[in-house]
Amino acid sequence: MAKDKAPRRPRAETPKGFRDYFGAEVNARDAMLAAIAGVYHRYGFDPLDTSAVETVEALGRFLPDVDRPNEGVFAWQEDAETEGKAGDWLALRYDLTAPLARVYAQHRADLPTPYRRYALGPVWRNEKPGPGRFRQFYQCDADTVGAPSVAADAEICMMLADCLEAVGIDAGDYVIRVNNRKVLNGVMEVAGILDPADPEKFVQERGIVLRAIDKLDRLRVEGVQALLGDGRKDQSGDFTKGAGLSIAQQSVVMSYVNANNMAKRQLMTMSKSVSQEVASSLRIATHDNSKLVGAYWRSIETSKIWNRQVLSVLLDVAGTSKAGAEGVAELTIIANLLEAQGYGPDRIIIDPSVVRGLGYYTGPVFEAELTFEIMDDKGRPRQFGSVAGGGRYDDLVKRFTGESVPATGVSIGVDRLLAALAARGRGAVEAAGPVVVTVMDRDRMADYMAIAGELRAAGIRAEVYLGNPKNFGNQMKYADRRGAPLAIIQGSDEAARGVVQVKDLDLGARIAAGASVAEWKGRAAQQEVPRDGLAQAIKAMLG
Amino acid sequence: MAKDKAPRRPRAETPKGFRDYFGAEVNARDAMLAAIAGVYHRYGFDPLDTSAVETVEALGRFLPDVDRPNEGVFAWQEDAETEGKAGDWLALRYDLTAPLARVYAQHRADLPTPYRRYALGPVWRNEKPGPGRFRQFYQCDADTVGAPSVAADAEICMMLADCLEAVGIDAGDYVIRVNNRKVLNGVMEVAGILDPADPEKFVQERGIVLRAIDKLDRLRVEGVQALLGDGRKDQSGDFTKGAGLSIAQQSVVMSYVNANNMAKRQLMTMSKSVSQEVASSLRIATHDNSKLVGAYWRSIETSKIWNRQVLSVLLDVAGTSKAGAEGVAELTIIANLLEAQGYGPDRIIIDPSVVRGLGYYTGPVFEAELTFEIMDDKGRPRQFGSVAGGGRYDDLVKRFTGESVPATGVSIGVDRLLAALAARGRGAVEAAGPVVVTVMDRDRMADYMAIAGELRAAGIRAEVYLGNPKNFGNQMKYADRRGAPLAIIQGSDEAARGVVQVKDLDLGARIAAGASVAEWKGRAAQQEVPRDGLAQAIKAMLG
Repeated sequence: MAKDKAPRRPRAETPKGFRDYFGAEVNARDAMLAAIAGVYHRYGFDPLDTSAVETVEALGRFLPDVDRPNEGVFAWQEDAETEGKAGDWLALRYDLTAPLARVYAQHRADLPTPYRRYALGPVWRNEKPGPGRFRQFYQCDADTVGAPSVAADAEICMMLADCLEAVGIDAGDYVIRVNNRKVLNGVMEVAGILDPADPEKFVQERGIVLRAIDKLDRLRVEGVQALLGDGRKDQSGDFTKGAGLSIAQQSVVMSYVNANNMAKRQLMTMSKSVSQEVASSLRIATHDNSKLVGAYWRSIETSKIWNRQVLSVLLDVAGTSKAGAEGVAELTIIANLLEAQGYGPDRIIIDPSVVRGLGYYTGPVFEAELTFEIMDDKGRPRQFGSVAGGGRYDDLVKRFTGESVPATGVSIGVDRLLAALAARGRGAVEAAGPVVVTVMDRDRMADYMAIAGELRAAGIRAEVYLGNPKNFGNQMKYADRRGAPLAIIQGSDEAARGVVQVKDLDLGARIAAGASVAEWKGRAAQQEVPRDGLAQAIKAMLG
Repeated sequence: MAKDKAPRRPRAETPKGFRDYFGAEVNARDAMLAAIAGVYHRYGFDPLDTSAVETVEALGRFLPDVDRPNEGVFAWQEDAETEGKAGDWLALRYDLTAPLARVYAQHRADLPTPYRRYALGPVWRNEKPGPGRFRQFYQCDADTVGAPSVAADAEICMMLADCLEAVGIDAGDYVIRVNNRKVLNGVMEVAGILDPADPEKFVQERGIVLRAIDKLDRLRVEGVQALLGDGRKDQSGDFTKGAGLSIAQQSVVMSYVNANNMAKRQLMTMSKSVSQEVASSLRIATHDNSKLVGAYWRSIETSKIWNRQVLSVLLDVAGTSKAGAEGVAELTIIANLLEAQGYGPDRIIIDPSVVRGLGYYTGPVFEAELTFEIMDDKGRPRQFGSVAGGGRYDDLVKRFTGESVPATGVSIGVDRLLAALAARGRGAVEAAGPVVVTVMDRDRMADYMAIAGELRAAGIRAEVYLGNPKNFGNQMKYADRRGAPLAIIQGSDEAARGVVQVKDLDLGARIAAGASVAEWKGRAAQQEVPRDGLAQAIKAMLG
């Protein structure tokens, strides 16, 4: 009889949709988190670290991306503590906002009002993994809880601009687009699909309308209009049901959708130079004012009046409803505050096309978008898109306490921002490699360790080679692989003479790559250095 | 009919066994992680960040604390991708070593050999929560994979000492105790409960013996001996079954358990002064040499020979077995390397009572213990105990690849270390509070924001009060609550005159606490400052 098969070995694999981050990638992320946290700190925000695990009850049903309802959380049920009683359901947090609402409700008696906190760390989404789409990713949030004034929203937008510039995205390479849910609600009221007296009515229609506006970028004006009416068949033939609005209702929403274009047309009538600039821009992007801004808007003298034009269109469309008028008034205050602080439309701009998927927003909403183009896998240029977003959510704490608590905040998608910097060639930065002390004689390990110890005491990154020292070539290969600037070699001869050999690996590499004879002679890739005072000599060599 | 009851509100609670960390606690932990990572970096280790989630298959069954087999992980099953096929089981990592073994097996072709990596982050244990015991906690690990030499273990021990001192635990306040699993195996062989030809035999007996030795601290010599024989009844009357060893077998193990005491007795015969010191120490602690070391051992001239004495006893007990002789030889190399680098028994000491629960260790094992006493909840002094540990685990990668890969590393329990520092009064450090710009006139919010913006541009932490500004007292209470050093006040009168009032809250608090009249007069708690050049003036006031 055949012997039993040996048990199968476990697979050495990350779970699907998860990945590992090595060396320089970790350093780059840490540097970014530190830069963002530094800005948040300077604005007076304090850190908060909640655990990865929350009760499903506390998290609630606020998963983002309303058009993908199958997305979920990683959840499991606790063992029952008492026989016959079911254990709590626990889950990994899917963002940093839901835990903040729980913390504020739980600890509000001990927290200052307003409570300004920042948080950074991983969040988890139980999504179907895809290329470049991971189920764990980092966010870096800042929120102000207990501040009713839209000055708090304006501050968050300014701070977001500061964060982006602190991590190396220059002004002009990003735009923060600001809208207000109240304006959207006003449009819905005017279009007759929101009844303030019965907010549950027309919920489904509004969902379709919001999702359609949110996709303006991709669907263009025609696609959006189709979704407002009977529905839309996409290129693959799939049909998406529309909101079924009448022509009159559609035209209210479409005036809103066209607010940017209407504002542009108004501007065009104002002066010839503006009209030429804007006209040329309209050929590039008929609905997307972020490009307009990113590429050349700053140079237009009238840029300061852009926000005014957009606000005046919005007032025309939604101002007859209370919510709409209130929303436009809030946006006007925000625009004024921002411009007074020097954050003009070249960095932060009023833009009615911002929706933000999350159901919990109640006032201003904003989104940061990178405006430069990157090349996709197939070498085609594409816009990088959204890297941060947020808004006001006055009802999130109310879930727990019954009392409305005004709150506003922003979430920065750290991994996307890192990818953007990498696409700009400013990604992962390799840390300086260690000076590698090679092992020529394994009985003198204590001597080699003493050399490394002295270097470290002098602040120099250093290590002894701890692999099998038999093959010296492997030691040099290792030093090279680690990016070591220098390798130190001390055989018994050098030890007897009280010296070491120091090999300049940077220089060695450069010389090998095809230097002139003069360079070879001028700078030795290896030099002898006295063992006494070695650390000082190495320090000088490292510059 | 009564109306339906409103749905119950969700509870605003962390799940049992989890907690939130606020402000200064987060800063203190970040500072500690940075200090430890700095030491690891200087030793040439590179960061690695794996995700929190692993497949249960990759994690394997290496949960620590063999005497609490009910402990587990937080795990859940993935939805099936294909109908009828079960989804993978996923789990939160319970340590940072199991993910490293998976990473090395998965990516070994792309990693340098040796691979030196550090990792820091939370780990999760599905334990029964208890006071001060949390189900999420931070670890900070460093491991060398692919280094067969025990020089790698010695290096890890030195680095651990450097880490403890870098975070503020002075030499003398900790001791790193080093042992070797091979010595333990040698003792088992000599006692006849380990047959190298049939390692599965006597597994249960060995488990009981190892757990008994591990508990020497608590059970004392008598308790350990009882567990080697028939068993032990504790104070509550609970009976623990023993290993059932014969008297002869017990005496082998007990010679090992008594190795420290035997070493002390040998030392006592060497000189009168040593004998007196040791004798007085024996009255304090009959088995615990860490106290001995921590409290005064450094002052004893013969401290350097302590390791030799212990090693000679161990050779007597276990040296007739191959494993035992090899283990003692390795410990001797380690002791020599450590002493040559200046890490003598005042910091790192050979100690046979170290077992380490984890089943996967194959060679040197070590544990860092804090030797100072702290007061428990009832005001009784107690030793703080273990804060870090590690050892060599040559077979962990083999699970995946079939090939043995030598590896050694250490794990620092960051939260325990933070608690220890807090107990020493060197815990959480409050960050400097922000300068608070108060709001006297809500229509001039842009002016107040401009003041805060100028201060931040000058590198000063600053914020505008964003709560309801109606009650000025609340604004000052807020500034106080935030630890603001200064508050800035500008009413319409000050604005007209181009000045602001700056209130020194530190000074105000000190004066209010009962200062003399002279102090009141000598230093004004409030002063008028010109609006122009305000940032420079504030900078000067903050020192």
